[in-house]
Amino acid sequence: MNFQSLTPELIAAFEQIVGPAYILTAQHAEVDAYADYGRDHTEDLHYAPDVVLRPANAEEISRIVRLCHEHHIPVTPRGAGTGLSGGALPIHNGVVLSTDRLNKIIEIDERNLQATVEPGVVNEAFQQAVQAVGLFYPPDPASKGSCFLGGNLAHSSGGPKAVKYGTTRDYVLNLQVVLPTGDIIWTAANTLKNSTGYNLTQLMVGSEGTLGIITKVVFRLLPYPRHNILMLVPFRQEAQAAEAVSAVFRAGIIPSGMEFMEREAIAWSSDYLNIPLTLPEDITAHLLIELDGQDLDELYKEAEQVYTVLENYDVGEILLADNATQKDELWKIRRNIGNSVRYNSVYKEEDTVVPRAELPTLLRGVKEIGARYGFKSVCYGHAGDGNLHVNIIRGNLDDEKWNVGLRKPISEIFELCVKLGGTISGEHGIGLVQKGYVGIALKEANLNLMRGIKQVFDPHGIMNPGKIFDAQIMQVI
Amino acid sequence: MNFQSLTPELIAAFEQIVGPAYILTAQHAEVDAYADYGRDHTEDLHYAPDVVLRPANAEEISRIVRLCHEHHIPVTPRGAGTGLSGGALPIHNGVVLSTDRLNKIIEIDERNLQATVEPGVVNEAFQQAVQAVGLFYPPDPASKGSCFLGGNLAHSSGGPKAVKYGTTRDYVLNLQVVLPTGDIIWTAANTLKNSTGYNLTQLMVGSEGTLGIITKVVFRLLPYPRHNILMLVPFRQEAQAAEAVSAVFRAGIIPSGMEFMEREAIAWSSDYLNIPLTLPEDITAHLLIELDGQDLDELYKEAEQVYTVLENYDVGEILLADNATQKDELWKIRRNIGNSVRYNSVYKEEDTVVPRAELPTLLRGVKEIGARYGFKSVCYGHAGDGNLHVNIIRGNLDDEKWNVGLRKPISEIFELCVKLGGTISGEHGIGLVQKGYVGIALKEANLNLMRGIKQVFDPHGIMNPGKIFDAQIMQVI
Repeated sequence: MNFQSLTPELIAAFEQIVGPAYILTAQHAEVDAYADYGRDHTEDLHYAPDVVLRPANAEEISRIVRLCHEHHIPVTPRGAGTGLSGGALPIHNGVVLSTDRLNKIIEIDERNLQATVEPGVVNEAFQQAVQAVGLFYPPDPASKGSCFLGGNLAHSSGGPKAVKYGTTRDYVLNLQVVLPTGDIIWTAANTLKNSTGYNLTQLMVGSEGTLGIITKVVFRLLPYPRHNILMLVPFRQEAQAAEAVSAVFRAGIIPSGMEFMEREAIAWSSDYLNIPLTLPEDITAHLLIELDGQDLDELYKEAEQVYTVLENYDVGEILLADNATQKDELWKIRRNIGNSVRYNSVYKEEDTVVPRAELPTLLRGVKEIGARYGFKSVCYGHAGDGNLHVNIIRGNLDDEKWNVGLRKPISEIFELCVKLGGTISGEHGIGLVQKGYVGIALKEANLNLMRGIKQVFDPHGIMNPGKIFDAQIMQVI
Repeated sequence: MNFQSLTPELIAAFEQIVGPAYILTAQHAEVDAYADYGRDHTEDLHYAPDVVLRPANAEEISRIVRLCHEHHIPVTPRGAGTGLSGGALPIHNGVVLSTDRLNKIIEIDERNLQATVEPGVVNEAFQQAVQAVGLFYPPDPASKGSCFLGGNLAHSSGGPKAVKYGTTRDYVLNLQVVLPTGDIIWTAANTLKNSTGYNLTQLMVGSEGTLGIITKVVFRLLPYPRHNILMLVPFRQEAQAAEAVSAVFRAGIIPSGMEFMEREAIAWSSDYLNIPLTLPEDITAHLLIELDGQDLDELYKEAEQVYTVLENYDVGEILLADNATQKDELWKIRRNIGNSVRYNSVYKEEDTVVPRAELPTLLRGVKEIGARYGFKSVCYGHAGDGNLHVNIIRGNLDDEKWNVGLRKPISEIFELCVKLGGTISGEHGIGLVQKGYVGIALKEANLNLMRGIKQVFDPHGIMNPGKIFDAQIMQVI
């Protein structure tokens, strides 16, 4: 791509569109906020934007994008910056377009169990707003307290509840999108079913800001499940924890959460949070299992069935959380594993995913590869979905080993995923840091279809350039 | 599109690929089967193919398609021919490519609750095969006894259970596809989550055979729900039946079926099937409500809640089906409405869909438009999804009125759908017969994106040409 540089005229035009209060340029280099727009939660990467724009609505975004399209200026859309694959990093500089001012819940339609929202709404704020009227929006990434719904859409984010309720993708009915040419479209209709033309909605979801900027979303909602039961199950053998996951489903039970945590993952997080947790010496992993529904008696029956399944495994004493505080603490520990790992060390996170029953094989493979190449990993994740987050800890690895030496073992981990029927990202996206590995999961014919689609949407290649795949054919590292 | 004609050399090449037993040409014009390949279940339309090919596998299909791509020969993929929008009609002649020999259930993976199947498997045969091992494949179109899974994928078919379980689209993890160039790809991975590149899977689903030919499918499955309760609720006012639908959901209940039937729909079908059914004079519509789950006590509690909701409406005596035979009969009546209407008269079926709570407004609008333009309609459908099938009865309408005069009122019905937040097809697809109306639902910018995507997949435009939209810009009728 041959991008043009920003001119003072263009910057003045942008300022006129968004207003002087909502533009940051290199003149603001000393302002913390400016530097922050060059980072996300991925390792310790940083790229400086030329200009940060914070438009108020789709019309302003359309005018900005139209100018960028005409003048071949890169545009990097940005939500809350909580991404873990570098998707929001402005690697070609240009415009960082923040959606933080598109933060309105426009309508909660109780008659139709739907809601219309803007992309800058924080996930948890939306969950709470719909819960207040008895409704339920299930997708709940670990960063739900700060991440935006727009970012969730960019990656089809999951979270613990995905195992029963699906990911962000499964709740989207219709999207308003500013295309890379500046045109504004709605992708579909506000209906539960739609068989009217190609599915542009699902093409946008997971496209990581490379096909346009989502400016409104119509979500479907569910009735809020009135009750839940949460249990923490300690295992003496990691592989058994992974094996038990599949067995629970085979017993006809679909938990609303089924989380796997290595001993170190849970230990680091409870230390980090100062939440005391007894961890007997012989326990190597835990499953956190949640059941939810409208009827508590029914849930207790299901819990008994889960206990029956677990009798076949070498488990320690099961903790059944018996009040809201205890449940909150357990979920808090689970959600803060990422933060606690980051607190301990720089790390690389690999978002591996395989068919559920292949998880024990994947876990063994990751540990074997780590032993062979000399790195330590802390593993945890959504075991019910076969989605294992592998955190490779920097510890005292030198620069050479960290920046170059890990490429081969990471490739081996991803190759194992694909061999097991899986792929290289379940919910974090490819973004920047996995781009070099995308050829392991996607064949050249698939990538060429994607490149063609990108070209249809974005003929000048301005929208989040350099993410997911390169415009040209590339080599697997 | 400038298509080429079939030559004797090409026909000989096709015969070599599939073998002489699996090719039909104009020489077989006297064979019923040959004529049948020019029809589907849409009105009384017929278009003759030049040649019918029945390949055995993806490799044969790839070889056929590669030849057609090179020589610019139209290819119309065909499943069981039960479509209602003319999607399988070979309107540009050329090759009809039947998938009926790709009819194997390759694997039912009980460990992962997944199955791998070929597209020519009959929906109900697949349902039964997975049920035999305690698993559940929910999508159940009315034609489930004869329709193929491949056709279900082409339109993202729904069926009664979609209200709780979603449509075909929601069960697809991965597709093997022969592209219009002859390349064979897999669209994704066999995982429940996937955030690795653009979603080619959901782009294929609902693309009505215009982007390639699906040759294998990996479906996710659920544990089979052990119990269900079925009730038939008669209403004295049609609009109230439609209104009650939304009220049930607002009470926190998600039925596994929520079907609306006008008096005539249920009366014609029970007559057609010779199943006696008492229909008091003052009953104008019915809801058929099914609840399912793993626990019968819980279902009875839910049924009581449904009864409580229904007390607010003017309903007749509710029939609670109390044995399997009675349940089967009620579902048989529902499923055979389409057949009974066809038995009574030629008809046009419009597959309207709106947000659930707008159904009463849509129903009133359809009747008002019918009264104004002088046609009779029989309405029924998946009320829980806001999906109303409007059957316009030919009766004694003359050719002019039937072929031309109905265009305006049908446009008005579709415009009403869009105004209510809906669209023009919920599960039958646009195919041939709704193509003239697609501009009512899809703006030019959307259609141009779809045309661009079509061009990326199918540069010679050979795959099911003339369906969904025209390659060129078109006028709304």
